[in-house]
Amino acid sequence: MKSHPSSGGPVAPDTLADLAAASRILAARGVVDGMGHVSLRHPAAPDRFLISRSMAPALVTPDDIVELDLNSEPCDPDAPGSFLERFIHGEIYRARPDVMSVVHSHSASVIPFGLSGPGMRAMYHNAAFLSCDVPVFDIREDFGTTDMLVCDCARGSSLAATLGERSVALMRAHGSVACGPTLRLAVFRAVYTEVNARIQHWTNALASGGDIAALSREEAELADVANTGAATRSWELWRAEVHDQTGW
Amino acid sequence: MKSHPSSGGPVAPDTLADLAAASRILAARGVVDGMGHVSLRHPAAPDRFLISRSMAPALVTPDDIVELDLNSEPCDPDAPGSFLERFIHGEIYRARPDVMSVVHSHSASVIPFGLSGPGMRAMYHNAAFLSCDVPVFDIREDFGTTDMLVCDCARGSSLAATLGERSVALMRAHGSVACGPTLRLAVFRAVYTEVNARIQHWTNALASGGDIAALSREEAELADVANTGAATRSWELWRAEVHDQTGW
Amino acid sequence: MKSHPSSGGPVAPDTLADLAAASRILAARGVVDGMGHVSLRHPAAPDRFLISRSMAPALVTPDDIVELDLNSEPCDPDAPGSFLERFIHGEIYRARPDVMSVVHSHSASVIPFGLSGPGMRAMYHNAAFLSCDVPVFDIREDFGTTDMLVCDCARGSSLAATLGERSVALMRAHGSVACGPTLRLAVFRAVYTEVNARIQHWTNALASGGDIAALSREEAELADVANTGAATRSWELWRAEVHDQTGW
Amino acid sequence: MKSHPSSGGPVAPDTLADLAAASRILAARGVVDGMGHVSLRHPAAPDRFLISRSMAPALVTPDDIVELDLNSEPCDPDAPGSFLERFIHGEIYRARPDVMSVVHSHSASVIPFGLSGPGMRAMYHNAAFLSCDVPVFDIREDFGTTDMLVCDCARGSSLAATLGERSVALMRAHGSVACGPTLRLAVFRAVYTEVNARIQHWTNALASGGDIAALSREEAELADVANTGAATRSWELWRAEVHDQTGW
Repeated sequence: MKSHPSSGGPVAPDTLADLAAASRILAARGVVDGMGHVSLRHPAAPDRFLISRSMAPALVTPDDIVELDLNSEPCDPDAPGSFLERFIHGEIYRARPDVMSVVHSHSASVIPFGLSGPGMRAMYHNAAFLSCDVPVFDIREDFGTTDMLVCDCARGSSLAATLGERSVALMRAHGSVACGPTLRLAVFRAVYTEVNARIQHWTNALASGGDIAALSREEAELADVANTGAATRSWELWRAEVHDQTGW
Repeated sequence: MKSHPSSGGPVAPDTLADLAAASRILAARGVVDGMGHVSLRHPAAPDRFLISRSMAPALVTPDDIVELDLNSEPCDPDAPGSFLERFIHGEIYRARPDVMSVVHSHSASVIPFGLSGPGMRAMYHNAAFLSCDVPVFDIREDFGTTDMLVCDCARGSSLAATLGERSVALMRAHGSVACGPTLRLAVFRAVYTEVNARIQHWTNALASGGDIAALSREEAELADVANTGAATRSWELWRAEVHDQTGW
Repeated sequence: MKSHPSSGGPVAPDTLADLAAASRILAARGVVDGMGHVSLRHPAAPDRFLISRSMAPALVTPDDIVELDLNSEPCDPDAPGSFLERFIHGEIYRARPDVMSVVHSHSASVIPFGLSGPGMRAMYHNAAFLSCDVPVFDIREDFGTTDMLVCDCARGSSLAATLGERSVALMRAHGSVACGPTLRLAVFRAVYTEVNARIQHWTNALASGGDIAALSREEAELADVANTGAATRSWELWRAEVHDQTGW
Repeated sequence: MKSHPSSGGPVAPDTLADLAAASRILAARGVVDGMGHVSLRHPAAPDRFLISRSMAPALVTPDDIVELDLNSEPCDPDAPGSFLERFIHGEIYRARPDVMSVVHSHSASVIPFGLSGPGMRAMYHNAAFLSCDVPVFDIREDFGTTDMLVCDCARGSSLAATLGERSVALMRAHGSVACGPTLRLAVFRAVYTEVNARIQHWTNALASGGDIAALSREEAELADVANTGAATRSWELWRAEVHDQTGW
């Protein structure tokens, strides 16, 4: 009989509601569609995290949240199964003690930057977290021909290594991950990675190979401080929209 | 007096509701507008298929579904007329015993790939079904100057021949078809053909003629296995939205 | 005391409701915003036409419709004023006895084709009405430096001359007009001019100066016959949406 | 104990409601998201202005409006804090006695014109207010490496100097400001700067470096007169939408 990891303990209902709301927020902003997921490190147990069972993000409720350990195994043997790619989350939490929340998405505007051409850069202050070179995880490098899915610890660990100390990594022919020290900052970064991608498509076309006066790294470092406030203000808006729709 | 084909027998109400919902799902996702259609092979009679009467997809109800044979003739002589281009469906079902569902649409982002330039390729795992060269049906090749409509068996058969064993074919200056072994997979492929088209427009612009690290054929073959699950999860989301709107 | 033109007689309430609905349809499809207008030739008096008073198209009700003569003067001296550019309509009705309905709009995707580069072409069968060279009205040619508005009979007549026997004309740095033998066909053409513009932007980018396999003129002539049916089906969808919102 | 500026006196409830509605209008049109703000000079006290407390524009109600002086200091010591970048408003009001309303936004389509390539030009009559060369404020020129925020009087004054007598200024790697002699005209300009940006992206791509037949400065001067009416008509539409949602 297989043993299951123990639970990190009960989680406040508001926390579960916020995490479920984050799923719906990302769906409403077009960052996720029927696929994609967001997780939160367990507030009381750094070696556990919370994520929904395998389902479309727009439908998640607080009751759909399950608890996994850093091997992405469920704490409750009777819990419904979570996502095939839950290992993205487990391995980033393992590698990055500073990260409290992770988003995985397939935004249409972001995918091109993992496939070709110039790297993603920070087009404005709200995307300052992109000013470090945004890395591209190409699963072929470590694993050869695959089904592209980060569906075990080894692949998750490889992705986490590519991410390094950054906030966002692109995944070739797949999507991207965004992470942060709070749920709202991870959600903010996922949303503004998508917005920045649209801005950069237009800017690259205007520039026609000429210069782009993007944020410098030094500017970005200073500008990103204010994004904590921006993320809070955005969260209040987005969270209120979910509350209006769901009552929670 | 003209004889009519016999019916393949009654169809479960849930099946009819799902097919009607598929019409509305495609409209809600922007894949079809006032035009376009989706069909389902009769579950009990492989030489019959189900499709709505001629009407805008967003308005279809289960009562609007009619039954046709593979010549795209109605089984019920009193049934309201279906689409001029119902032959797209009949001939694909005739040529492809593995296909249980067909979608025909005119998505704005997809049409350009039938008119010019580089072929459509699979930009990410959810579009893995596009990794075989996506063929373009040019009705001029077999029929010269026409009204562009696939409005008889000969034209339908020619389109089916272009499609071959693939899941998607483009139609020059017209639109595209997507098919699959289930209703939900055909709908999924129609939706993600449209998403992939948007991603590829952006990617081609970024690449400026340079390399695009699209899915390789081997990767796509592996990745497409997981799309059955992705189609189910997406279907649950989209079907719930229709249910919320219609009560069925 | 100035004399006013006589009325062409009462108009059926359903006709007024359809015309008001057409305004809202164009707004809902993004063809018009706070500006733009649609008119209908008086069903019983070919030298009169119906159009709303000057207001945002999305707010028009049947009570807002006024009657003008072909000089674009109101039949009712107490009627609220109509649009500054009502002369677009009056002069097209004067020049084109076959035209029963006219739309003027400023769709963002259409304006570029009046400003630069390759002409607009028919990208697919639903836009077959665009296969004649779409002319560009440049108000500078006849009137020099102006406020760009077609705000008198002379300017309207010049625009009508540029339109000639076609269904659509672009207006440099301004917008476009679409017309047709029925209200629903004029609306259909306005909507699909906008859709075609989006398709052509993508196609031009893909083609990079290479060939575009657009509809030939002969194909377009044949294909456009089916658009009468497509316009009816689309109208039923769009009209139902307005009815759901307004009750009329 | 710090002294606070005196109030300019009570403001009519309708004025406060219109200003709160303007925030929601800009959010509904996609001009602002969780960030961005709109202000109104105090109707009775030219050295005071009204703006919401720091919050997402889509959530603003009349009760959230606070009063600041031209140093962007609150008149009520107990008022909740306004935006970090309130100095944008205070300094433009100080420099431009003709300006009664200011909008600051980060529209995705507009930002590219502050980063690269050809300047923004007036693509059509509704954007005639853009025909003067639209300046780009680069905060580096006066302040070196910063957090990009216009968060004090000196930075606001520098931005106001770049704006000069114009209606719109872009801000490098940040966003833009639009202003006008009335609330509705400032809102109109912010909205149509965004629309014009989208039109110009398409036009630049079509032109491929060739000519663009944009509004000439003389045409723009004449055309802009009619925009006062267009702004009123648009305002009526947008204001009605807010009223339907909020009851105020």
